[in-house]
Amino acid sequence: MSSFRVELRRVVDDSYDIEIGADLAEKLVRDLKDGLAGKASRFAVVTDDTVKELYAGRILSLLRENGFRAELISFPPGEKSKTRQTKEKVEDAMLEMGFRRDCCVIAVGGGVVTDLAGFVAGTFGRGVPFINYATTLLAAADASVGGKTAVDTPLATNLIGLFNQPEKVYLDTAAWKTLPKEQVSSGLAETIKHAVMADRDFFDFLERRMEAIFALEEEACRHVAETNCRIKYRVVMQDERESGLREILNLGHTVGRAVETVSGYRLLHGQAVAVGLTAEALLASRLGYCTAAEAERVRSLLRRAGLPDRLPAYIDREALVRKLYTDKKVRAGQLRFVFQKGIGDMMCFGENVYSRPVEEALVREILPEM
Amino acid sequence: MSSFRVELRRVVDDSYDIEIGADLAEKLVRDLKDGLAGKASRFAVVTDDTVKELYAGRILSLLRENGFRAELISFPPGEKSKTRQTKEKVEDAMLEMGFRRDCCVIAVGGGVVTDLAGFVAGTFGRGVPFINYATTLLAAADASVGGKTAVDTPLATNLIGLFNQPEKVYLDTAAWKTLPKEQVSSGLAETIKHAVMADRDFFDFLERRMEAIFALEEEACRHVAETNCRIKYRVVMQDERESGLREILNLGHTVGRAVETVSGYRLLHGQAVAVGLTAEALLASRLGYCTAAEAERVRSLLRRAGLPDRLPAYIDREALVRKLYTDKKVRAGQLRFVFQKGIGDMMCFGENVYSRPVEEALVREILPEM
Repeated sequence: MSSFRVELRRVVDDSYDIEIGADLAEKLVRDLKDGLAGKASRFAVVTDDTVKELYAGRILSLLRENGFRAELISFPPGEKSKTRQTKEKVEDAMLEMGFRRDCCVIAVGGGVVTDLAGFVAGTFGRGVPFINYATTLLAAADASVGGKTAVDTPLATNLIGLFNQPEKVYLDTAAWKTLPKEQVSSGLAETIKHAVMADRDFFDFLERRMEAIFALEEEACRHVAETNCRIKYRVVMQDERESGLREILNLGHTVGRAVETVSGYRLLHGQAVAVGLTAEALLASRLGYCTAAEAERVRSLLRRAGLPDRLPAYIDREALVRKLYTDKKVRAGQLRFVFQKGIGDMMCFGENVYSRPVEEALVREILPEM
Repeated sequence: MSSFRVELRRVVDDSYDIEIGADLAEKLVRDLKDGLAGKASRFAVVTDDTVKELYAGRILSLLRENGFRAELISFPPGEKSKTRQTKEKVEDAMLEMGFRRDCCVIAVGGGVVTDLAGFVAGTFGRGVPFINYATTLLAAADASVGGKTAVDTPLATNLIGLFNQPEKVYLDTAAWKTLPKEQVSSGLAETIKHAVMADRDFFDFLERRMEAIFALEEEACRHVAETNCRIKYRVVMQDERESGLREILNLGHTVGRAVETVSGYRLLHGQAVAVGLTAEALLASRLGYCTAAEAERVRSLLRRAGLPDRLPAYIDREALVRKLYTDKKVRAGQLRFVFQKGIGDMMCFGENVYSRPVEEALVREILPEM
């Protein structure tokens, strides 16, 4: 028996910039001319059929007008497209168009497009450069920092994927104007989560400026996008591999994901998270981690953002309680939650421990208020 | 417009050990007890149906006897299983068995199993630990260093995948005894390629000890496995992302891959590479990069390893020449090859340039000698 050591210690620099503002397509083109995509000689603009009409087609034309060899590949919008099958179709389309290793993937769209296109880029030719042009508030809040890409399978959500950092992210706040109102609201749910979790000043700002945000005033939108990035970055950077602090990003999501599933996806993700944030604020106030007044402030801000703060009547309460037990934080059969600490901070229960067990009885206690 | 910097510069250590010897299953178990797989609490032994019977089943039992929660997942043997569909089936099997992020994938088999299982591990839960227990000489020569994992698609070979370094590699030379002779020969083709490319002493050793290797004498096998790793490591380490030096690993493969395809996969990969090594040695001697005697030494060693050193009669010469133009090194419509320099070294044609254009006429000139 003998042994041979393969030394693979090296410095990896995956740093990137997030550009925030209205109408960034021309900036993207300038960046590409300045070498953003390295040696890539062909570009795959990956998008969904809705964003294709509203936005991605325009970016494609602009790329071509500027001499870039670009093709557009799109798929039906919505979470149901976030599958291995769609990934395969995008890959096959790229291969048929003759794409090989010297290409770059530009994702144009919301979270589903980013998640899928980022995953495609990560495994095409064992990894090609990936640029993320985000057109939704939700993607700004959620998908622009962290490098998570993934698809769903019938048995698991987001379990097949990889960490793949983009070359650059563009958060185009002008694109938010093309979103249906309920999509803006849905994005605001993650924004409010970030504020509750980590930034009291931002929460105050949201209370003060909710109308301006809803009217999509540019300056307010820019501040929302930038602060979302800043908060997510702070949390994710301290815990890149999701072992500790990143757990706090689950705020509102423990109940939220269960609500989303039990609703049979009648609720948008953000709407379900809003219900979850309400439920978990009520739990926090029961446990003394925030005041009843603070829980009510959360609830009221959610309502002003056009979000539900109670369970729709059609939700089966028993099914919901059962569903909570499939959460990945469940340990030894016990429900676990992370909790807000007042507004703008999170409870910590020990070194790298941000969740604690909660009796089912307590969860049942708050249901009548929901 | 404003901009936000995400700093992601960090030291990554993907170093690992390659353990070489006969019957390493118990060593694997000891290593796992010593924490090789980190916090993984469940193990997926991924293999093919042939290796399952010969080897992987035994490893599974040993793991279970030692208290590890392990399951076996296998698929039909052969290159035809190296697809996204097989990857999906393995993933679904793991999900159905309740595997989540806290698992470890142990690949037991040859190159196809390693490539596929390594890819599965790289995207399951966005990356779980991966151990490579290689049972073939070819895997020892080819798949144990470099971190390449991939699957084929109808339109491209090895184009969908990722770089994923294992926690550890085991090269079990005793397992080679279970291989059909032509598989041993096939593995020797890559071994001879390594010797021609980078190690004259090793080439001498192969000439001297070919019979002992073929009889699978343990010491000779150990030396073959170890030297293969050492050579591949030297080449791959100097060029982890395949931009320059790594190109020399194409020796014998430019013609070899074309032969393999045109043969309709009647030839094993190693057999096709042997034909390729012969053709490229003849080209090298024509161009004065090695002597005719050196080209003949390569040819003779290939024959003694039970490998073909000429084109089978059923190969359509014209189709072969056409197929050469689909090689990824082709630039501006011109064929390009890397070339041996004598025996044990490679030609270099400029900084980081190891291939040069070759006229089709020259290729046609050597065909009658094939």
